[in-house]
Amino acid sequence: MAASARKKAARLRVHVENNPKAAAINHVTEAGFRAKTKHHPGLLKRIEITFGMDPKQLGQMVAEAEVLVASGGVDISSLATQAPKLKWIQSTSAGVEKLLQYVPAGVALTNASGLHGPKGGEYAMTALLMLNHDVPHFVTSQRAGKWDQSHATPIAGKTLVIVGVGALGSAAARLAKGFGMRILGVSRSGKPNRLVERMYRSSELRKVLPKADFLLVTTPLTAETKGMIGRKELDLLPHHAGLVNLGRGSVIDNDALVEKLSRGELAGAVLDVFPLEPLPSSSALWTAPNLIMSPHCAVDDAESYAARALDIFLDNLERYLAGRKLINVVDSKLGY
Amino acid sequence: MAASARKKAARLRVHVENNPKAAAINHVTEAGFRAKTKHHPGLLKRIEITFGMDPKQLGQMVAEAEVLVASGGVDISSLATQAPKLKWIQSTSAGVEKLLQYVPAGVALTNASGLHGPKGGEYAMTALLMLNHDVPHFVTSQRAGKWDQSHATPIAGKTLVIVGVGALGSAAARLAKGFGMRILGVSRSGKPNRLVERMYRSSELRKVLPKADFLLVTTPLTAETKGMIGRKELDLLPHHAGLVNLGRGSVIDNDALVEKLSRGELAGAVLDVFPLEPLPSSSALWTAPNLIMSPHCAVDDAESYAARALDIFLDNLERYLAGRKLINVVDSKLGY
Repeated sequence: MAASARKKAARLRVHVENNPKAAAINHVTEAGFRAKTKHHPGLLKRIEITFGMDPKQLGQMVAEAEVLVASGGVDISSLATQAPKLKWIQSTSAGVEKLLQYVPAGVALTNASGLHGPKGGEYAMTALLMLNHDVPHFVTSQRAGKWDQSHATPIAGKTLVIVGVGALGSAAARLAKGFGMRILGVSRSGKPNRLVERMYRSSELRKVLPKADFLLVTTPLTAETKGMIGRKELDLLPHHAGLVNLGRGSVIDNDALVEKLSRGELAGAVLDVFPLEPLPSSSALWTAPNLIMSPHCAVDDAESYAARALDIFLDNLERYLAGRKLINVVDSKLGY
Repeated sequence: MAASARKKAARLRVHVENNPKAAAINHVTEAGFRAKTKHHPGLLKRIEITFGMDPKQLGQMVAEAEVLVASGGVDISSLATQAPKLKWIQSTSAGVEKLLQYVPAGVALTNASGLHGPKGGEYAMTALLMLNHDVPHFVTSQRAGKWDQSHATPIAGKTLVIVGVGALGSAAARLAKGFGMRILGVSRSGKPNRLVERMYRSSELRKVLPKADFLLVTTPLTAETKGMIGRKELDLLPHHAGLVNLGRGSVIDNDALVEKLSRGELAGAVLDVFPLEPLPSSSALWTAPNLIMSPHCAVDDAESYAARALDIFLDNLERYLAGRKLINVVDSKLGY
């Protein structure tokens, strides 16, 4: 008994906490975890893992944990006192803006950036094609019972500006290149990207916006990106331009966006993310013209979301146990 | 004067009639015609051409015409008596179901098949991606003010059945292959097509429908295709399937389609064509769930529609003057 207890105590204590408000496809389940560990021989013997999905129980579940796996929507605001042994939090979401402020000092945070690749890129291309072919206009006319033709041209040769050229932005760029689009990118550093004709630094954003036939926003929410696409930036877009936001709602001034759409100063918009989610029923976005919305789900792959999150976590877990450098480490100053 | 009149009389008399109810982008104008003839040296000297857009004047305009250029919506029901010298009608539309019955005996009819290629193929792909990513569901939820998530998977590996693999169907197949889709085709003859994994004859339609994740209809309206996708055929589609109609409205039983959509027995539909156009305000299609409609314009290229129609006509006109075989000749029995 004593030997067994000692052996058990030596195992790495890991807790996985799911958000009960998130869709089932986003949950990292024990069954899913066990299935994945078949590809990581010996791993299960080195850890002791628990699973939870009850915010009230979280404190108790993490009391002994050294590692916490949690989605971006889990409330970890009391972790500093609840989890004295915690050393590492693996987020199963790409965006960590809600977690970040509560990560206790000295605890590493890694995210699941890369998760949205194939499905997210495909949805971004879908949104660009919808905008190019006036689908938001058709949908608005249909809602009003109006037969109102609109004629477009193919998307080839048109210019796409991508703000945030990470995994999702790159997947979108790859498809857009296949459709013959010209691609410009904006990132904090402006570092060159082989999929992008020219990269601009965030500080040059206003220079590139007038060139956009389409603007695709995929940035995480950070101190720097909050409100990045404000009224002035929207005013710099050509009136025929379309906007897609698959990043975070608060990156864009949505009130200004509604005004621009209502005045016909933008051709259309496709939004998957909102400052408050679920979107309040009082929001003017619900009925804004030439706007198509999805409820923060369009970039998540129904079949592989949790599996991909687990792949990232298990890769990192092997690294952690071996004392190697973790991947996807979030820079707490930059926020991603 | 006499010599000049004789010379004039020797010229081929051509009349171009546009449909005033059609969008301006569909019109073959005199300016557009003159611009194009720069690439056909000497042609203008061999013809005498008039342009019209008034149904009341048509009879007078065609009294001496040997060639008529007209869109599919022009009323030619009195042509047999009005145009005794007529030998050839060039349609500037791909679909000629309205013209066909009024083509006088002995008069050749050619259509503008091939016109919709790039823009039409791109819109077909847009529609397939919208269906794959649950956009019709998002739009229906948005209309109802409901935050209702839905999670899809990438389109790669899914099966597209194309009914009517002509210029538009082939353009769609090319793009769908690029997205990793599996493509099956249905045509009258079932003749192999290099873009399609397997072609089926129309008589085998019911065999292929259960295999479809997506059904794309691009057929012209003929005696054979009218009602081709009826209630029984719709019932053979899997419940998760999506339907796109870019051909002609009456190819599908739209009442049955509304019922299937309302009962959730089809995931969604994207329609650009309707049995009656403009779609009457009494139609149940306007408010059917998971349905996105465009008013018969989504496959027309705003910049090149008329130019492409003119290219086909001028190619044929050179052939006609040289006594060579015309292209795009409509088989009056088959109807396309």
